[in-house]
Amino acid sequence: LETALVDWLLRRIPLDPRLEVPPGDDAAVLRPPAGRRTVVAVDMLADGIDFVLGTGCTPQQVGHKALAVNLSDLAAMAARPEAAVVAVTLPTSDGEAIGRGLWEGLAPLAAAHGMTIVGGDTNAWDGPLVVSVTVLGSVAPGRAWRRDAARPGDLVVATGRFGGSIAGRHLAVVPRVAEALALADRHPVHAAIDVSDGLSLDLARMMAASGTAAVLDADAIPIHPDAVALAAADAAAGRPTATPLDRALGDGEDFELLLVMPPDAARAAVAASGVAPLAVPLTVIGEVVAGQGIFLRDPAGVVRPLEPRGWVHRLGGLR
Amino acid sequence: LETALVDWLLRRIPLDPRLEVPPGDDAAVLRPPAGRRTVVAVDMLADGIDFVLGTGCTPQQVGHKALAVNLSDLAAMAARPEAAVVAVTLPTSDGEAIGRGLWEGLAPLAAAHGMTIVGGDTNAWDGPLVVSVTVLGSVAPGRAWRRDAARPGDLVVATGRFGGSIAGRHLAVVPRVAEALALADRHPVHAAIDVSDGLSLDLARMMAASGTAAVLDADAIPIHPDAVALAAADAAAGRPTATPLDRALGDGEDFELLLVMPPDAARAAVAASGVAPLAVPLTVIGEVVAGQGIFLRDPAGVVRPLEPRGWVHRLGGLR
Repeated sequence: LETALVDWLLRRIPLDPRLEVPPGDDAAVLRPPAGRRTVVAVDMLADGIDFVLGTGCTPQQVGHKALAVNLSDLAAMAARPEAAVVAVTLPTSDGEAIGRGLWEGLAPLAAAHGMTIVGGDTNAWDGPLVVSVTVLGSVAPGRAWRRDAARPGDLVVATGRFGGSIAGRHLAVVPRVAEALALADRHPVHAAIDVSDGLSLDLARMMAASGTAAVLDADAIPIHPDAVALAAADAAAGRPTATPLDRALGDGEDFELLLVMPPDAARAAVAASGVAPLAVPLTVIGEVVAGQGIFLRDPAGVVRPLEPRGWVHRLGGLR
Repeated sequence: LETALVDWLLRRIPLDPRLEVPPGDDAAVLRPPAGRRTVVAVDMLADGIDFVLGTGCTPQQVGHKALAVNLSDLAAMAARPEAAVVAVTLPTSDGEAIGRGLWEGLAPLAAAHGMTIVGGDTNAWDGPLVVSVTVLGSVAPGRAWRRDAARPGDLVVATGRFGGSIAGRHLAVVPRVAEALALADRHPVHAAIDVSDGLSLDLARMMAASGTAAVLDADAIPIHPDAVALAAADAAAGRPTATPLDRALGDGEDFELLLVMPPDAARAAVAASGVAPLAVPLTVIGEVVAGQGIFLRDPAGVVRPLEPRGWVHRLGGLR
C-alpha cells in the first residue's frame, strides 16, 4: 500500500523510550521530560534557495542542513534536543533516492544529539525538493535564553568564526548545542541568538528586542578563512568585492551563537573555551550600551553606526 | 529589518499562558500540561497537489486546510490540540497577501480549538506555495488511540459521510476533534485512524497494523451527497464514472474518523450521536475479523475481497 520509501524509513526509526506509540501511527506520542518546558522551532528549506541540488550538493547534505539549522535554534535557547518531525515534498523523478539520502544525512546528526525522529510526511510533485523540519527540545523552567534581555554593560561573546559560508560551509552546519548546554550550566547568559542571516543583522535583532544598542570592535571580529579566500578570489578576478570583515559581518548562514553576558562571566567563559565541552573558541566581540542600533569601533577607536546586513529571502527581506 | 508580513504576523499572535517566552525568539518555549503525553503531527501541502490556488481556492482556504488536516491527525489519536508552528515558502509575487490570507484561514480554526500558533518560518521563491504545519497536542498516558490494537469481534464505526470531497469539501475540512475527545471520555476505543487517503485504503492500513481483517457492509457505508452528484454528473456527460459507493470507498480527503470499538460501546456511541458533543452522525459500517485484508459484504450477503483504493501522491503511492 505504501511505498518502499515509507517502509524503508519506518524500519530505520530506532526504538526510543520517549515514544509511547510505535512510529507509523497518525501522530507521534512522546513522554515529555518531567519538570521541563517544551521548546519548538521549525525551518523550511527549498532547492534553489537554501541549497542547489546537483551542483556538488547531495541529498545527504540537505538532510544534515535541514536538521542542523533547527538544532542551531535550540542551541540559541539553551535547549536540549529531544525529537524531530520531517515533512518533505520530493521531486517525482528520483524522489525515492532523494528521500533515502535525506534520511542518511539527518539520522546521524539526530543520533549524535540524542534525539529521535518521531514522524513525518512524504509527498511528491514535479517541482523542486522542499524540506521542513520541526524540532522539539526541552529546558528547565525560566532557563531558556531569550533575545530580549540584554543589559547595558554586558559583553557580546561569539562562538566560532564568521563569513564566507557560501563557499560550502553552509551545507556542513555544526550547531553549537553542546557548547550552549555547557555554557548554560556554568555561566549567566542574559540573551542569545544564532547567526542565521548575518552577524550584524542578527545582533541588531537581538538589540532591538532588548531595547539596547551594541558596539562591536572591528579588530575583535573572528573572520573565517573562507571569507578571506572569497575576498581574495574576487579581487584576483577583478570582481567587485567585499572585505573579509564585511563578509564576516553580513554573509550569514554561519550558525554561530551571539551571547550577551555579564563581563566577568564573559571573560571566564572565553578563558575556558577551546576545550570540550566548550570546544569552539569564544571571543568577546563587543559590548552592550544604552541606546538603539549597532555600531562599529575601528582600530583607531572611532565609533560609527553599522548598517545591519545579512542574507535575506527575496520577499523584501523575509526570514 | 524584517518585513511587514513578519511584523504583521507577530502582532496577531495572541498572548497565551502556555507560552513562557514571547513569540519572535529563536524558538517557542511552552509550558506542557502536567501529567500528559505530547502528541506531534506534521503535514505539508503544496499548490497543484493538495490545492490549486486561483481556481476558486483562496489563501484563506489553504490556511484552514493546512491546520485542519493536522487537527484530524490529533483527533485520530484522541489528543487535545495545544499549539502549532507554521512554515511557508511563498511565491515572490503576491507573497505578502498570500501570507496574510493563510493566517486569516489558520487563526480562527486554531482559536476554535483552544490552540496557540507559537512560531513559524517564512520564505519566498519563484515557485508554488508550500505550507507545512506541525501541531502539538496532549493526551493522558496510555490513552492515545492507536491503529494497531483492533480485535476480532470489534465493530468499525465511522463519523460522517464519505466520497466526493474533490467537489470542494476537501478545502473546508471539519476535523472531528470535539467528537474524538467526547468519545474518548465516554467509550472504549481499541483503534482509530483518520480517512485522509480513502476509506478503504486507511481502513486497510489500520487492519494491517492490527494484524486483523475487516468486513464492510456495502449497505451501511454513509455516502456523501457530493459522491452521488459527481457520479450523476459523470454519467450525464457520458464520462466514465465510479458509483457513489466506489467514490465513498476510495475518493479520500474526507477527514472523517474510523473507530474500532467493542460492540456494546459502538452501539452506545451510535445511539448517542447526532447531538453535541457527538454532533456528527456515527455509523457502524462493518466488523473486525481474524485474518488479513478488507472485504465488502453486498446486500445479498455475499462477501468479496475489497481492493484498498485511495488518493495517493504520484511517487508510487507515497503519503
